[in-house]
Amino acid sequence: MTTPGYEISPWQLRWRGLDLDGLRRTESTFALANGHIGLRGTFEEGEPRGLPGTYLNGFYEQRKLPYAEAGYGFPEDGQTVVNVTDGKIIRVLVEDEPLDMRYGNALKHERVLDFRSGTLRRHTEWESPTGRRVRITSERLVSFTQRAIAAIQYTVEPLDDKIQLVVQSDLLANEPVLSRTDDPRVAAALDKPLISDHAAAADYRAVLAHHTRLSGLRLAAAMDHEIDLAEDNVRTEMTVEDDLARLTIAADVPKGSKLTLTKYMAYGWSSKRSSPALRSQVDAALVGALQTGWEGLLAEQRAFLDDFWDTADIEVEGDAELQQAVRFALFHVLQAGARGESRAIPAKGLTGPGYDGHAFWDTESFVLPVLTYTIPDAARDALRWRHSTLDKARARAKTLGQRGAAFPWRSINGDECSGYWPAGTAAFHINADIADAVVRYLNATQDKPFQNECAMELLVETARLWMSLGHHDTHGNFRIDGVTGPDEYTAIVDNNVYTNLMARRNLRAAASIVEDNPSLARELGVDTEESSRWRDAADDMVVLYDKELRVHPQSECFTHHARWDFKNTPAEAYPLLLNYPYFDLYRKQVVKQSDLVLALHLCGDDFTPEEKARNFAYYEALTVRDSSLSACTQAVVAAEVGHMELAYDYFAEAALTDLHDLHDNVQNGLHIASLAGAWMAVVAGFGGMRDHGGKLTFAPRLPPELTKITFRMSFRGSKIGVEIRPERVAYRLHSGEPLELSHHGEPFTLGTEPVILPVPQPPSLPSPQQPHGRAPARRRPR
Amino acid sequence: MTTPGYEISPWQLRWRGLDLDGLRRTESTFALANGHIGLRGTFEEGEPRGLPGTYLNGFYEQRKLPYAEAGYGFPEDGQTVVNVTDGKIIRVLVEDEPLDMRYGNALKHERVLDFRSGTLRRHTEWESPTGRRVRITSERLVSFTQRAIAAIQYTVEPLDDKIQLVVQSDLLANEPVLSRTDDPRVAAALDKPLISDHAAAADYRAVLAHHTRLSGLRLAAAMDHEIDLAEDNVRTEMTVEDDLARLTIAADVPKGSKLTLTKYMAYGWSSKRSSPALRSQVDAALVGALQTGWEGLLAEQRAFLDDFWDTADIEVEGDAELQQAVRFALFHVLQAGARGESRAIPAKGLTGPGYDGHAFWDTESFVLPVLTYTIPDAARDALRWRHSTLDKARARAKTLGQRGAAFPWRSINGDECSGYWPAGTAAFHINADIADAVVRYLNATQDKPFQNECAMELLVETARLWMSLGHHDTHGNFRIDGVTGPDEYTAIVDNNVYTNLMARRNLRAAASIVEDNPSLARELGVDTEESSRWRDAADDMVVLYDKELRVHPQSECFTHHARWDFKNTPAEAYPLLLNYPYFDLYRKQVVKQSDLVLALHLCGDDFTPEEKARNFAYYEALTVRDSSLSACTQAVVAAEVGHMELAYDYFAEAALTDLHDLHDNVQNGLHIASLAGAWMAVVAGFGGMRDHGGKLTFAPRLPPELTKITFRMSFRGSKIGVEIRPERVAYRLHSGEPLELSHHGEPFTLGTEPVILPVPQPPSLPSPQQPHGRAPARRRPR
Repeated sequence: MTTPGYEISPWQLRWRGLDLDGLRRTESTFALANGHIGLRGTFEEGEPRGLPGTYLNGFYEQRKLPYAEAGYGFPEDGQTVVNVTDGKIIRVLVEDEPLDMRYGNALKHERVLDFRSGTLRRHTEWESPTGRRVRITSERLVSFTQRAIAAIQYTVEPLDDKIQLVVQSDLLANEPVLSRTDDPRVAAALDKPLISDHAAAADYRAVLAHHTRLSGLRLAAAMDHEIDLAEDNVRTEMTVEDDLARLTIAADVPKGSKLTLTKYMAYGWSSKRSSPALRSQVDAALVGALQTGWEGLLAEQRAFLDDFWDTADIEVEGDAELQQAVRFALFHVLQAGARGESRAIPAKGLTGPGYDGHAFWDTESFVLPVLTYTIPDAARDALRWRHSTLDKARARAKTLGQRGAAFPWRSINGDECSGYWPAGTAAFHINADIADAVVRYLNATQDKPFQNECAMELLVETARLWMSLGHHDTHGNFRIDGVTGPDEYTAIVDNNVYTNLMARRNLRAAASIVEDNPSLARELGVDTEESSRWRDAADDMVVLYDKELRVHPQSECFTHHARWDFKNTPAEAYPLLLNYPYFDLYRKQVVKQSDLVLALHLCGDDFTPEEKARNFAYYEALTVRDSSLSACTQAVVAAEVGHMELAYDYFAEAALTDLHDLHDNVQNGLHIASLAGAWMAVVAGFGGMRDHGGKLTFAPRLPPELTKITFRMSFRGSKIGVEIRPERVAYRLHSGEPLELSHHGEPFTLGTEPVILPVPQPPSLPSPQQPHGRAPARRRPR
Repeated sequence: MTTPGYEISPWQLRWRGLDLDGLRRTESTFALANGHIGLRGTFEEGEPRGLPGTYLNGFYEQRKLPYAEAGYGFPEDGQTVVNVTDGKIIRVLVEDEPLDMRYGNALKHERVLDFRSGTLRRHTEWESPTGRRVRITSERLVSFTQRAIAAIQYTVEPLDDKIQLVVQSDLLANEPVLSRTDDPRVAAALDKPLISDHAAAADYRAVLAHHTRLSGLRLAAAMDHEIDLAEDNVRTEMTVEDDLARLTIAADVPKGSKLTLTKYMAYGWSSKRSSPALRSQVDAALVGALQTGWEGLLAEQRAFLDDFWDTADIEVEGDAELQQAVRFALFHVLQAGARGESRAIPAKGLTGPGYDGHAFWDTESFVLPVLTYTIPDAARDALRWRHSTLDKARARAKTLGQRGAAFPWRSINGDECSGYWPAGTAAFHINADIADAVVRYLNATQDKPFQNECAMELLVETARLWMSLGHHDTHGNFRIDGVTGPDEYTAIVDNNVYTNLMARRNLRAAASIVEDNPSLARELGVDTEESSRWRDAADDMVVLYDKELRVHPQSECFTHHARWDFKNTPAEAYPLLLNYPYFDLYRKQVVKQSDLVLALHLCGDDFTPEEKARNFAYYEALTVRDSSLSACTQAVVAAEVGHMELAYDYFAEAALTDLHDLHDNVQNGLHIASLAGAWMAVVAGFGGMRDHGGKLTFAPRLPPELTKITFRMSFRGSKIGVEIRPERVAYRLHSGEPLELSHHGEPFTLGTEPVILPVPQPPSLPSPQQPHGRAPARRRPR
């Protein structure tokens, strides 16, 4: 056996060798999902395991949120993603010994996540404690084309003599999972969360229907099977109970022959539809999948992915590990967002139970920029989900004494679930982030139906929120007081620059869209008085500037605060929030994650190049990156201001966050936003792509370690490719209409002919310093 | 029967008539306590009742504090005062009918709390449902002189015929009490909190010993009895169980005769002493009380109070109700603080379970100023309690990343129990408040042993806290960022003026005391470098000033914030914190309770008279008085700047807070700090008493509604009286050495001869405006 670990390969993530301790991590990295169903990469035999997980996007249980001292408007109920009925399980008895990788010997073992086939393959040769040898090969998928369907093809093959094999294929509800909380009430709420409504089986097919105790959501899971064995001495048996359906297959399999089981699973859930309706839905999905067949599902999956890579692929020349990491990143972003349709995109996708399965601003600010330019329909659907929660957001705004809509800081169903308001509810910037994602999507697609059905209302209601959150002071400046910006080590501050700039864009975008669509505006109750007030507030918006330091303070007084004592903060004291009180973090100059620097990226047209360089250097010295949402933004801005090596280091950190488990928590699920950030580091960082004011512009420049980067994206129906080499850049139109673009500030038209343009020298600036001990790892290309 | 309610009388609080709904309120106002034991004013027969309560200062049960999202340094455990073994209960069976005021008729019923005898008397004539009539008279006390002792004398008298009476006198542990929480875990922790260790009885004496489940505190309660009855056909019986000891007395009592039971109770508790030790302690206390006897206890009680009133009485001429209220206030402040000795003074005293029995800054900032000048030993003991918790405060400071000591925002045993840090832990001003109380006590008593044993260490450790909480900015100003001042509708702000000024005094006081006591300073590890840094920080302290408005902003940017929309805030939306989110309160100009105005009082020498007048008017328009800690301070500053009628209204509000149940929560206990505030309104308000820099100064002036106010106080062992009339003031030295005083800025010496001085005209200023609907009730003298 070779040393266990990931092997570098451009289109695959392969893990060779057995490492049981690594399972909790590889269950996340090897997770399969289509935005609707998520299966963690657990072995088919169920055990050994880290944290088994089967998730349905939006399916949660509810629980009371406790408070030591409650306050008006604190959310009463929390939501936690539920590990639903597990259909992945296929156990094998080899003669009389259960196949269990903890025992016997793994003679050969590898698993491969294939970014082009969209499947997870396994190849295991196992010797039982008494010396019987079998080969297991399996391949599984969660279908991008048939969103209710997952499937596994599983083959067992005796390697020496004829062996009696007993294969059990389960549907298992209320699977015991180690509690991840020390709050006994939370643990109780999530212990056996599913209550049986119905269980039935016939032939090789079974269905289990359940509902949750408090949230009242209903679920049906079904399985059907095809058995392939040359011999005919097979005995099968189907049993069903409330929480378990099991197909058992017993056969004597001679050497040279093999038993292949193809398992089709279908999932459906609803808060409204009845159990019988859900049952017929999953039965129908199963029959559809059976008709397509395993090979058909594989072919559809590959075609879907061919199309995706054709639009979205990134080639990195000069660093094979980052080449792999960036495709791994894109693949998982796709898995998180592809077929969510009317649901949120959780921070962990459907790869683990981290953050309780909640969606945050990660979606709009990190994931949607990628989806907008690679698979825009998925971006649209995620924004349609936000729109579908508008009534809840309006109600929340009302509770908070505000007008318009206040979207939740964290949620599964659209209700606020944040139990600590200074770093939750007060982070109102999420509303401007949503507006920004709406504007970006509209600019990139010119999607009129979405504009009329969703975008206008989202922009109008968020603009209204800003009008009530802010006010004009006696000097006529428009202030936004008492909010929290992206940096969670500073909270409840006045005039957070990021928030104010993003709110200003929100107000102007809302004013523009209502001015362009007066009749729709009237339907939303907006008159010209209101939209003029939006413009006035935007024009009067306070944007702080510290004239002495010549930087923008993150918020009022920020630059007057004491600096965090980085020198005396040991490495093991990070992340700081686990070792220091909020009180002390809040009042000092220490930045968890890009905040003002994120403004330099997203609102880049509000700053001069000199301001960007000075601000970046100032905040670089304060930013500890205790959030995975920081490195990618630092990569983008470092590249813009000319620190190409630093940008490269941050790109690597963002791209390798999960593969290197940099935050030591990948077992709870992947950091989807950080993976999206890898795309951002390439496209917005090295590609210099910006979309200010609806224009698509580039300012490409390679880091010295790389010889070439090529990326692809789609804009207004056209697909383009940008190939960056050290000295020159080639722009190509792969399909669609010509586009007006710009290269380092110079406009050009991209038609059928490639456009080759030179790369200007970057400005030369002294290297910025990070806080003591917090510089990113210097990347050595591999 | 007359209409039920309080009757006005100068030395008594009398309630005539039966009002069962009023019981929950009168149980608080008629509570008896000596700072160590507290008995709520429940009827002897136990029922009907509001919320029965017997409290021992410092005796609590512990419970986990739950958090929806926990954070580093959040306190893990809460503490809640326990309703201990109830010894007040004396039930009567009149023939075969239990005496219960809910049934039959109360022919006559009154209760009297007597401020001079220090007892609660009851007189009831009751007719049973079947027409039997009895007279009940009782008197009870909690002894100021024998702090472990309470006693009741209880008499039953048949009014018509001979009646068989059965009297049961109980000691009852784990008395069922309605839960006041909807958190099932808290309710569970406090359901039957006492676990029996020991129960014994002999003759008329019984003892029950218990401990608490989690806090592990031990408690013994004992009772003994004297029975007085002319007839000798008495049968008595003593029974004892784990949670109940009962003496039963049965007798046929002829008309004209009566049965008198004198019940002595003794309480002791400890975290260290064993059950047998506690049992012997309460047995010994009982024997002592029996030896003193009922009449002896009454005489000691009266002598103690005669002495108190001789030092502390306030006479108010022209408003009989306020005369009564101010003595009621002084009596309850005495009951809260008199014999606490090594324990805290809780915000509700020992009159109810409100605020979980916790002590806050109320003690040092509101109660101790009164005790310092009326019963200074009690002030000393309360500060000794703080000193005894220094190790916990040092540990808390360390947890918070600070040096020195950080005292808890709310606590029973000295550990932080505040579960919402922005309005708890961040309110660091409590440390300067403690230092201020230390300095005030030292100035008023020149108590050297206290100075050496406690005061220096308290001042040094709090000064060290401020040095680590604050920092010098690039301009050399000393800033204190990210803290919460007294106004709980603003939180986590920079440079709260009150906090900065109080911290400055703290630093200077610490520097002075260590400079005066170099050898003790060395023992505390203070060198001249350290004390010089304290002085420098004090000199460099930021004190914000808004030059445009010419007022001091409460904290950075405060005057730039939006004003609360008072006009559209309906009366029923107060207190605002129950109807609006903190988020919105924090970011607007709305003041829960005096903050900057409290600085005008306590740090009056830091402001010019013009600044005081302007600041008072500015903040008066923003202050909604949702805290009972506000009106008294507003009275004091209103009087100083010349708004005498307004000061009078605020004085009335402070004094009547509980008698008129202005906050609709007196059932949970009295507002001891507000009662102390009534004294403050008289002495610091109308008397203009200030103690800046160790000098005792006066600036007396009457409100137009009153014809005379006389108050007494003690200073450096001398007792003085100040008699204020409209045109002139008479200062008298009742005992002790002559004092250097000042009258409206003019120094004078008060010796054996009275000093009569004229009252200058007040400045004439326009009346300040309160927020819409929040002006205090205009007081009409009664």
